[in-house]
Order: sequence, then C-alpha cells, then structure tokens
Amino acid sequence: MTNIDEQVRPGHLRSAEPDDIYDEDGSIRSDFLALVGAAIADRDVLFLRENVASLHESELGHLIEAIHPDQRLPMITLLGVDFDMTALTEVDESIRMQIVDQMPNEQIAAAIGEIDSDDAVYILEDLDQEDRDEILAQLPFTERVRLRRALDYPESSAGRRMQTEFVAVPPFWTVGQTIDYMRDEEELPESFTQIFVIDPTFKLLGVVNLDRILRTKRMEKIEGIMRDTNHPIPAEMDQEEAAQVFEQYDLLSAAVVDESGRLVGVLTIDDVVDVIQEEAEEDLMRLGGVGDEELSDSIPEISRSRVSWLLVNLLTAILAASVISLFEATIEQIVALAVLMPIVAGMGGNAGSQTMTVTVRALATRNLDIHNAWRVVRREAGVGLINGIVFGLLIGLFAGLWFHDVNIGGIIATAMLINMMAAAIAGILIPLLLDKIGADPAVSSAVFVTTVTDITGFFAFLGLASWWFSI
Amino acid sequence: MTNIDEQVRPGHLRSAEPDDIYDEDGSIRSDFLALVGAAIADRDVLFLRENVASLHESELGHLIEAIHPDQRLPMITLLGVDFDMTALTEVDESIRMQIVDQMPNEQIAAAIGEIDSDDAVYILEDLDQEDRDEILAQLPFTERVRLRRALDYPESSAGRRMQTEFVAVPPFWTVGQTIDYMRDEEELPESFTQIFVIDPTFKLLGVVNLDRILRTKRMEKIEGIMRDTNHPIPAEMDQEEAAQVFEQYDLLSAAVVDESGRLVGVLTIDDVVDVIQEEAEEDLMRLGGVGDEELSDSIPEISRSRVSWLLVNLLTAILAASVISLFEATIEQIVALAVLMPIVAGMGGNAGSQTMTVTVRALATRNLDIHNAWRVVRREAGVGLINGIVFGLLIGLFAGLWFHDVNIGGIIATAMLINMMAAAIAGILIPLLLDKIGADPAVSSAVFVTTVTDITGFFAFLGLASWWFSI
Repeated sequence: MTNIDEQVRPGHLRSAEPDDIYDEDGSIRSDFLALVGAAIADRDVLFLRENVASLHESELGHLIEAIHPDQRLPMITLLGVDFDMTALTEVDESIRMQIVDQMPNEQIAAAIGEIDSDDAVYILEDLDQEDRDEILAQLPFTERVRLRRALDYPESSAGRRMQTEFVAVPPFWTVGQTIDYMRDEEELPESFTQIFVIDPTFKLLGVVNLDRILRTKRMEKIEGIMRDTNHPIPAEMDQEEAAQVFEQYDLLSAAVVDESGRLVGVLTIDDVVDVIQEEAEEDLMRLGGVGDEELSDSIPEISRSRVSWLLVNLLTAILAASVISLFEATIEQIVALAVLMPIVAGMGGNAGSQTMTVTVRALATRNLDIHNAWRVVRREAGVGLINGIVFGLLIGLFAGLWFHDVNIGGIIATAMLINMMAAAIAGILIPLLLDKIGADPAVSSAVFVTTVTDITGFFAFLGLASWWFSI
Repeated sequence: MTNIDEQVRPGHLRSAEPDDIYDEDGSIRSDFLALVGAAIADRDVLFLRENVASLHESELGHLIEAIHPDQRLPMITLLGVDFDMTALTEVDESIRMQIVDQMPNEQIAAAIGEIDSDDAVYILEDLDQEDRDEILAQLPFTERVRLRRALDYPESSAGRRMQTEFVAVPPFWTVGQTIDYMRDEEELPESFTQIFVIDPTFKLLGVVNLDRILRTKRMEKIEGIMRDTNHPIPAEMDQEEAAQVFEQYDLLSAAVVDESGRLVGVLTIDDVVDVIQEEAEEDLMRLGGVGDEELSDSIPEISRSRVSWLLVNLLTAILAASVISLFEATIEQIVALAVLMPIVAGMGGNAGSQTMTVTVRALATRNLDIHNAWRVVRREAGVGLINGIVFGLLIGLFAGLWFHDVNIGGIIATAMLINMMAAAIAGILIPLLLDKIGADPAVSSAVFVTTVTDITGFFAFLGLASWWFSI
C-alpha cells in the first residue's frame, strides 16, 4: 500500500532477503514459522526485533496471515514500537479488523502516527465512528486534519486513496532553490517522483518530474520547465475511474484536486495497482457467482454470502424444470429424450458463457463501445451459427447411432443449432443491455444467459420431438 | 506501453485534452471520428498533424481501432514522420499485424528508431524472421544490438519487456558529478525515476532513487547513498513472476540483470501494469472457456478457438447422459424424475463453480498455500454441508408439493445435499490438484468440476429413486 519503492533498511537487510522467508512455492518457510512461533511463546523480543521487525511490510503481512490467530496480537505487542502498522494494510480485512479490535486505541494512535496518510486512512476507514474519533483525537493537529479530510471523501474515491504528503513549490522558484529546499527540508514524504507547482491558495499550476529537475540548470525557473497536469484527479472521482486514467496515460502519480482545483493530495501508482487488481478480481468473482468474500471469512459468513446467488439459480432451474414438465407425455413414450436433453441445454450454457465472458471483459476494459458493438454482435451470431452446425452434426450423428433412430438424430441436431444461436445472442446482448441500463454486467449476466439456454434447449429439443412424433 | 508519465507536448496540448476526443461513455466522439475520416479522404495532412499527431499514444491507438480498417494505413501514411509508432502497442494484435504487414519495411525501421526499445521489441516480436531481420539491418549499430539482445530472451520474459535505455554511474562519483552529468548528457532515457550504480564490467552494485539524489549534498559520494537492489529481476524470469515482485514490494522500476549479474535493462511499472491486466484477463477468460481471442478476430478464428473447449464439454455431457440412461426404466415409470433431475445437477454445478472461482483466484494471487489449504478445504466442506441442507430442504419441500409425493421430496432433498457436498469438495480439490501437478487450474478446473457435479447429481437422484421405489 505505501512507500513507493523499497526503503533503505540498514542493518538487517541481508536477513530480510525475500528468499529467506519464502520457500520455492512462494509460501512462508515452515521452519521460519516455527522459529517465530517459538519466539512468541518464549516472549523473545530480541529474535522478533531482529528477524520480524526487519521484514518488508508485505512480508510481515504474509507472516501475520500465516501464524496462528492466537499468536497475532501477542507478536504485535511484543514488537511494540518496532511493529510497522502498514503491514495491516496487506492482510485480509477480517484479520485486520480482528487485530485492530483487540489493540488499545492508544497503541493504534501511536502506530498510525508513524505511517503514511493513505495507509492510515485504509486502516481507519473500517473502524466504527467512536474508535476512529478516539484515535484521531490523540494525533497531532495537522495530521488529524489531514486524515479527517481524506476520510470525509466518499468510500472508494480517489480522496480516500490519496497520500496527503507531497512536495509543492511556487512557480517563481529556480531549480537551484528547489533542490536546496529538498536538501534542507526534514518533513518530506518517504519517497516521491514528481513535485507540484502551486499558487499561494494551493491552486495547482503544474507538475515537474524529478528527472526534469535533475537535467535542468540551477538558475532556470520552475515555471519554465513545469508542464500542464493533463490529468488531475478530482478527489471525488471513483478509484476505478482514476485507475483507468493512470493506465491509459501510463502515470506514476497524479495530483488530486478539490472542486476549486486546489491540490489536496497525490495518488500513486502502487495504490492504483491494488485497485486494478481488486477490480479484475471483482469481475472474476462476480462471474463465478461469488461476492466480496475473503479466504479468512468464517463458514457462516461464506455460506450466507453465497446463498443469494444459489437461490436465484434455484428459481431459474425450477423455471427450466417447468418447461420439461410440459412434455411429460412425450418423455414417457420416448425416454431417450430425457437422456439427451441435458446435452442440448448444457452445451448451450457453455457456449453462452464463452460469449458472455468475452463481452463482460470487453465492457470492463472499455474495448466494447458503440463503434464496434454491432460488428461484435454480428460476429458472435456468426460464431454461434458455425459452432451450432458443427456440434449439431456431431451430436446428431452420435445420438442417431446410439438410439438407432434417425429421427432423434435430426431432432437433436436442429435443437442444438437453435440453442447455440440463442446462446451466442444471449451471451452478447444480455451483458450489453445490463451495461446500458447501468447494472453491472458481471453480477447478473450468468443467471440470465443460463436461463435462456436452459429454457431454449429444453423447449427446442422436447418441442421438436413432440411435434415430429405428434405426441 | 512506454514513456513513463505524460510527455511535454507543447503547442497542441489544449486540443489534445482527453475530454476533447472522448464522449461521456469513454468512447471516441462520433463527430471527431467523422472529422478524421473526412480529413483522411481529403488527404488533409494539416488537419491530421494538428489534431491526430498531437494525441497521446493511447488515444491514437483508440482512434486507429475506431476508424474503418481501410482508413488505417492511409492515415498513418499521411501522418508520415509525425506518426508515433508507439500507438501500435496499444491496439489489438490482429490490427497491429494487419497494419505492420502493409507498411514498407523502410518505413517501419524509420519509425522503430524513434521509439523506446521496449515498445520496439513489442512490435518486432510478432513479425516473421525475414521482415524482422530486414528492419533490424536498417537500424544504427547500437540500437540493432540492443534490440537483438532483448529479442533473444524467451517470449513473455522480463528481458523482452525491459527497456534498454537507463542511467548508470560508477559508485565513486559524487552527487554533484552525477547531477552535472545528467544536465549535460543528451542521450538520456525519455524519463526515469532511479539511476543504477555499476562497476566497469556493468555488474550491478546498487540503485539510487532520484528523490534521494535531490535530498543529498553535492559532495557526497553515490556509494554512500545507494542501496542494495533487493529485487533485481533476472532477464529470463517470466513476466508474470516479475509482476508479482513489483506488486509485493511496490516497485516503480527494477534492474534487469543477466546470468552474471550485469545490468542489461530496466523494467518499469507501466509495463508491469499491462502484465497484471493481461494475467487477470487470462484467468477470467480461461474460467469462461475462452482462449487468447481478441475483439478484432474474425469469425473463423473465434469459432475455431472455442471449439476445443466445447468439444471437451460435449464429451462430459455425453458421459452424464450415459449415467441417466442407466435409469431409463425408472424414468419411464416416474417422469417427474426427468423433470427434476436437471435442478439437482444444475445447482451442484453452480455451487461447484463458486468454490472453484474462489480457489482459482486464491491460487493465482498466492493467497492459498500449504499453510491454509487444509483449513480452506474444511471450510468449503462446511459451506457445502450448510448450503446442501438449506437447498435440500427448500427443493424437497417444493418438489414434494409439486408432485404430491413425499417420497420424491425426500429423495431430491437427499440428492441435493449429496451433490452440494460433492460440488464443494470438487470445487476446491480439483484446482488444488491441478496446481500441484503443474497444470493451470484456470484452464481445466471447470470441465472437471461440472463433470463431477453432473454425474453425482444424476446418479444420486436417479439412483436413490430407483432404490427407494425398487425399480
């Protein structure tokens, strides 16, 4: 979450080499875990300070997740001021909540004061109002104001993710003055890649990358080398939208501004990478019918979160069953139909989810828009037609041979063609439509597409059979 | 793909504001497209230079994708030397290939010489050997050698994605010397955030971030402020693995070294973001049964790429059908079974894909490992049990009422419980097992899981019925 780039960690650098704590599979080495466990049991502060406090925040986060839940708070307490609170931004939300709930507010306040504002906000935003106020009250004035301002922005907004520490200079300074200021100033951010140019009211005038400063003679003015910030991020902007701006324009960091264009913070690529990951994960999980669950959630939590999706699917399955029940008489006479009907429905479902997956992804990456939608719809219909013919012929031949009945072969072939076409059209039109009306296509496309392919599959196959055999 | 951060584009900065060419939905505005189309038809070079050449490479890429295929080459030809070849790294592979195939090799060589080495490699790697050699032959010696070296590394390796332009200094230089060098040197990379410290044989000694240089007094030695590069990336390392290192340690750029530890290039976060996106996309597409297709692929290409997945699914569907055919006698007597059986199989399939989605994602992000695998397996089994009981009771009650038969209600309830348990266990064990044997769980988990839930569903439901009613 924090500190662009690695930090200088003198002393224990060697012992904190990533190879040291991870095995080949990328899991934390079991012997290291055992050593840490023993040290916690023995209250061996020296060992922990030497081998745990020196870890990178993400490694420490992995370690917290890997040790026994009962060891987590004791380890943090033993580390005391040497515990890097940033590590908590690297663990599952439920684990973070558990730890923070058990920590005294004074301890949290002391630790929060040490870390970057974006990480502090990340931890504070999940706490209840009362705890949050108590912690904020114990922070120095400027820090309290900064954090409150970030917390006032809506959840998942750029304002929540931004860092409030940045370097800003007036346009009339020279490059030399700027460099001297950075050499003398103690209160600079941990690390940064660009400096901002502002007027006395903090209105953003421009931005200068560090490499440009280093390439320029000392006497040149900042306003001469600054450039327009083409892409300042409004603090209210959704983090996903901000991530898209970063991606499109290959930004490393961007100024975050309030409604009146005043600089309030900086959004950095490391936080944006996390957002990109989360968004990609969300789409994948939603397509699979899973909500915002985490690996550390409990059985009742998981079970509850998955029930709603299964319930919707139960209703559509009953709907499909009721289609079958229309043809009970036909099935009673030709049981082969009952044997074959899941093939038609299932293949339609698979073809539909192929098209749907491509469509949902293309919508998420904004590759699919009004300029090519019609072309893509026609293409998917074409693919459905070709694959419908291919698999219609295959299954027709197979079913005809299996049941020694050319009629059944012909009927299933036709039904397969119809259902593959339906699958293709549903697979593209349903996500497009959901997107058009402002719904998230990843969440609900799958249910609708399967409903279409199940009902079409059963209806086409059983209906054709009932008509052909006049039952 | 290239040029960390925005570039200074004097002059037409205003007219290239992103708001100018995009509408609210993020599509390119139709009137802008019409203007460009007219300018291409009229061979209006002035308009194109003013309004198209000034676009950001990603905007230009979008524009190329949005205009009619027949207009693409004419537009590029009209732009001539003003065309930024980097834009081609932003378009679909098939469109890039189409354009590059039509461009004369001399024109490609001239354009390639203008862009960063990582982008040049990105374009060159898709060409056939002959064209590639011809283009390389027309480049200046140093550039040719650099590009050849990058192209010699395996596909999707860090060596292929790296930029060969970087700033490297000896450890005994002072900060002042380093700054003076950067002020005077003409051949610096477009932009950079850190400089490397090397010995005379190019062996990597350390790294210094630009902000550290700016904070340090001129007389200090570089070796005093450089730090160990904790995470140098071997050039042969897979790009996905390199991306994980970037993510874990929040890197902005990292040194790429050869087998003997010599600095050969630098990998930057903007390229890594693309890799992260691609990998997330790959998992999503594979879970949906789709290969490496692109929105611009033709119908036969798409159709062919999807057939293999559908073929595998056809075989498993036939397998499931053969399970049903074992119970033809039972179905003939109680047609209600045919009506209800897809519900049992389908619900199992949905529950299984929920578990599978979570598992595949956790494996991809390395959140699931030997330390928690057993716990997660038990948890999923618990979720399967609870949801099996919930949905068993629901469907049992419903089916009993529908067919006025308490026996059918009891049978479907039991079968549902069994299949939900099977779904949970298959949903987690199959991806874990595939991962263990080195197969990609995203590719083949879905087929195996559905096979298990279909067969278990049909067998449990029809088998129980056949046993209970002794048919």
